[in-house]
Amino acid sequence: MVDVFDAKCPSRAVMEHLSSRWGVLIQIMLLREGTMRFSELRRAIGGVSEKMLAQTLQALERDGIVRRVVHPVIPPHVDYSLTDLGQDAAKAVNALFELIDDRWAEFEKAQIEYDERKK
Amino acid sequence: MVDVFDAKCPSRAVMEHLSSRWGVLIQIMLLREGTMRFSELRRAIGGVSEKMLAQTLQALERDGIVRRVVHPVIPPHVDYSLTDLGQDAAKAVNALFELIDDRWAEFEKAQIEYDERKK
Repeated sequence: MVDVFDAKCPSRAVMEHLSSRWGVLIQIMLLREGTMRFSELRRAIGGVSEKMLAQTLQALERDGIVRRVVHPVIPPHVDYSLTDLGQDAAKAVNALFELIDDRWAEFEKAQIEYDERKK
Repeated sequence: MVDVFDAKCPSRAVMEHLSSRWGVLIQIMLLREGTMRFSELRRAIGGVSEKMLAQTLQALERDGIVRRVVHPVIPPHVDYSLTDLGQDAAKAVNALFELIDDRWAEFEKAQIEYDERKK
């Protein structure tokens, strides 16, 4: 039994990798595209630095979400894709992502009303 | 049409609030408990500072996820709960949360194997 509310439980770190800004976007990109190279991910995700993308991919690989395959060709090339566990995690993340897209008008309305109240 | 992959799109900020470490935990707590006071949330979420909790609640309130009700009693007391939009967002977040709990053995196995490979 794990407890993400406990700051010291190792499940908390996994929750953080999966739900971080870049973790979320990486999962969705890899779910959509099947397999992507590092440079393709970098181009597709606005605002991510090379360092942050590399670190997040590494954390997701260690957690068993992302599969990293090195092809022994010249020049070497590296593919990233989702594992089965990653597919399931990405589906949950994708539901949040679709909610934001589908109900964007409600988010925007709430923000405008909040800002009016605080004036 | 919003695009969370675009760093400048306002939907990106909403995605970040909803999927941040504290945003995720606040949503799940409020989904479970219905209504909570600030101090109850603080106690329930390990490792969150007063400042971070206040900032995250404010961001979620502005996005229309969290409802903040001030009761005009002495001493004043403030309740937090989820809006309808927040309930739906929290369900998506909860799915991720349950996946981590249900399949913890798989995450742990992946981590051990990764660490063995890197030795």
